[in-house]
Amino acid sequence: MKEPLPAEPLFPDRTSGENLAVQLARRLRAAIEGGTLRAGTRLLGSRQLAKRLGLGRNTVALAYEQLTAEGYVDAHKGAGTFVAANAVRHRQRRGGIDRPQSSRVRRASASRSLFETATGSGPLRPGIPDLSRFPTATWKRCARNALQVYDRDLGYGPAAGLRALREAVATHVRQFRGVSAQPEQVVIVEGAQAAFHLAATVLASAGEDVIVEDPCYALARAAFMIHGLTLRAVPVDLLGIDSSRLPQTARLAFVTPTHQFPLGGALPIARRLELLAWAKSADAYILEDDYDSEFTSKTRPLPSLQSLDRDERVIYIGSFSKTLAPSIRLGYLIAPPHLASAFRAARASTSLGVSLHVQATAAEFIEQGHFARHIRRMNAVYERRRTILVETLSSRLQEPFRLGPSQMGLHIALIGERSFDDARLSLGKDGERVIPLSQLCIERNDCRGFLLGFANGSDRAIEQGATQLAERIRQAASR
Amino acid sequence: MKEPLPAEPLFPDRTSGENLAVQLARRLRAAIEGGTLRAGTRLLGSRQLAKRLGLGRNTVALAYEQLTAEGYVDAHKGAGTFVAANAVRHRQRRGGIDRPQSSRVRRASASRSLFETATGSGPLRPGIPDLSRFPTATWKRCARNALQVYDRDLGYGPAAGLRALREAVATHVRQFRGVSAQPEQVVIVEGAQAAFHLAATVLASAGEDVIVEDPCYALARAAFMIHGLTLRAVPVDLLGIDSSRLPQTARLAFVTPTHQFPLGGALPIARRLELLAWAKSADAYILEDDYDSEFTSKTRPLPSLQSLDRDERVIYIGSFSKTLAPSIRLGYLIAPPHLASAFRAARASTSLGVSLHVQATAAEFIEQGHFARHIRRMNAVYERRRTILVETLSSRLQEPFRLGPSQMGLHIALIGERSFDDARLSLGKDGERVIPLSQLCIERNDCRGFLLGFANGSDRAIEQGATQLAERIRQAASR
Repeated sequence: MKEPLPAEPLFPDRTSGENLAVQLARRLRAAIEGGTLRAGTRLLGSRQLAKRLGLGRNTVALAYEQLTAEGYVDAHKGAGTFVAANAVRHRQRRGGIDRPQSSRVRRASASRSLFETATGSGPLRPGIPDLSRFPTATWKRCARNALQVYDRDLGYGPAAGLRALREAVATHVRQFRGVSAQPEQVVIVEGAQAAFHLAATVLASAGEDVIVEDPCYALARAAFMIHGLTLRAVPVDLLGIDSSRLPQTARLAFVTPTHQFPLGGALPIARRLELLAWAKSADAYILEDDYDSEFTSKTRPLPSLQSLDRDERVIYIGSFSKTLAPSIRLGYLIAPPHLASAFRAARASTSLGVSLHVQATAAEFIEQGHFARHIRRMNAVYERRRTILVETLSSRLQEPFRLGPSQMGLHIALIGERSFDDARLSLGKDGERVIPLSQLCIERNDCRGFLLGFANGSDRAIEQGATQLAERIRQAASR
Repeated sequence: MKEPLPAEPLFPDRTSGENLAVQLARRLRAAIEGGTLRAGTRLLGSRQLAKRLGLGRNTVALAYEQLTAEGYVDAHKGAGTFVAANAVRHRQRRGGIDRPQSSRVRRASASRSLFETATGSGPLRPGIPDLSRFPTATWKRCARNALQVYDRDLGYGPAAGLRALREAVATHVRQFRGVSAQPEQVVIVEGAQAAFHLAATVLASAGEDVIVEDPCYALARAAFMIHGLTLRAVPVDLLGIDSSRLPQTARLAFVTPTHQFPLGGALPIARRLELLAWAKSADAYILEDDYDSEFTSKTRPLPSLQSLDRDERVIYIGSFSKTLAPSIRLGYLIAPPHLASAFRAARASTSLGVSLHVQATAAEFIEQGHFARHIRRMNAVYERRRTILVETLSSRLQEPFRLGPSQMGLHIALIGERSFDDARLSLGKDGERVIPLSQLCIERNDCRGFLLGFANGSDRAIEQGATQLAERIRQAASR
């Protein structure tokens, strides 16, 4: 059986830029899979086809070679190239590869559910600051000034970050959080998530234990899970993590001592010291995620763990996503002195760093005092909204509902009874979603309620959102 | 023994912003370590000291509590707080912590030497494009236009990258490299280094084998080593990796088929197909680092492995560091369709992505055609310099020296005999450094010579650099 090869649809598209042999192979494959070229058909010789299509002979030979390797055609020496008998089987593949996947790939895929868990919507959505008050004009001015890095500095900067930004960060954390650090200890990353991952990479191997708070920030779990660490959940109460229950086997503990995520506790000094003593006795390290501690109510927050640490056990993590805006994609990790060089090397091995222009913009923004000013200004705004949320809910909900601590940060927990079905009530009628505490739990099943943000909505929207939520809860209770 | 506490140096600095208790503890600690407060000294009661320093009593109590926990002072109920007898031992700590470190930390630190290995200087420094011809004005114009992302888009963008940039990258790799990909398969990262790390995270667990070329790009080794993978070195010749020697045990192979780093080979189609067949039979994946394949001599390069891959085994990696400038810090990874969602989730678990402004800038730059234009323009420049380097060295060096393939990319290997002491001759008299091939080898000891860049220097500088290097080699040989 010999059919003339239908040349028409095989003519290459030279404007597409696609490699001509790849194009030809693709078109022949389609003709075979589509049935235009049937099994047993002899293809034109490479010289003939090349001539007909205006291609080099090597191009055609290469396409034939590839199709032979793929099993679409068989080359019979002397006799020519024939469409293979079983070529049609390839058609089944077109739906895509569906291959049993390794534990690694499964682990990566599994983390997706944690992202859904972590996302809310509507006025009480947590995790996003008031972006309508982002100092856009000032930031853009700094960004325009910083464009001059493209005039002079186009090479690889230090993987750990521009010196100017590391200095600005060291000054910021000293002023706002009592964190004492040299610029050499600072590693600039894309945000807290990258910092969690970097710390896990340096400090723990797959299969080792990491302590996480229960309930806990879902995306921190994702960072540890994809690294293959085993989560050891330690319960928190309204003061924070129970420091008397830390397993000695863990290599790492991930904590939010200044403003526990999600319940809101401020860890008392005695527990902080106990945490540090645990790290020493277990020869472990502590990741202190200080994600929204710049925003405090009247009282000054307790000193950061890092500032209490005399044994270089604390890795301090901060981000610009809450103090400025997530889209900037900047955060920082502060390593203890004896680990600073290992962290810098690990950063370089996993990423040669982030945009020098963005770093220069942030450095200028901080140095010129805009950052501290913005934080102070927003603190007043958030203080007001915190009060609105507290008062709206307190006046509308009674026992057994209660509010978690509300001195700090950008969210408050509304805590219900153990039997409260928070997941069912997490969706409002306009589709807005508050995050149920039950979904942030790891092992325990006694923690029910909602994680409520008050930053990313106007005063009025916060009040309305809280009123509607309270109404939803009351209606459900009366049914 | 009772001494009045010297209050003067203890007065807190309220302008520093540092937490007052932390400050007080630090000052007391310094007084104890410095000998101002001797062992056995009774400290003022917290109430008295608070009054004298104008602090809250809790602040002083907190500082005392901390010093007690640290062992600097002892609290005797009823009797007061005393400087501890062994407090002076703490002085020894001041030199910094020197703690036996885990294998993880050692691994991170060890990767530093690979960075030194990878760095050259002077006109023949490889790895850096001609930054003096970076289209600064055009890029800055795009960056200024893209500043409007700060007006409308301040939240978290997709962790895998802005849709507009992923589309622009998919178009670019199709046009220039015959890579076929949907935007969903593209993950935007900070550069090739971050892509290596992400691929290792998704596809291999610590302790598993990764195939690397021998000799190999040093920083790729660093990415795999910090991930705990075992390197399986497979030798390359002047065509590229020896595809008949791939161990079936490996989960991953890292290859540079279009322009082998450092020797320069273009892997023949038969070896490409053999590589793909290996991946299928070993149930493994291939990382194709296509780091400088946009720059080609007269001939079109062979199709990328990715475009030949019918079994979804290839992860394609590219970067803007060679085509534009490293300081932009953008690169991309293209996952096969069945792994795309796992890669996106893994990216989000390890980093929520890079600056939206930088991404929007790059998207605009590509969409408007500036990128393709820049590459074409630079291709002509590099073609000229490639010729200069080849001709200068060819006319000045004889057997046994020879040049590796020179059809592609931004560097050429100068290859000497097995006995050639390349490390000794790698430094020029002005301190310029070319990279010795011996330092890029993993197991083999028969590969000597230099990795020579020709991009980051004027035509004249390349010629002079090559002339001086040839002279250095000749002098050494005649001695």
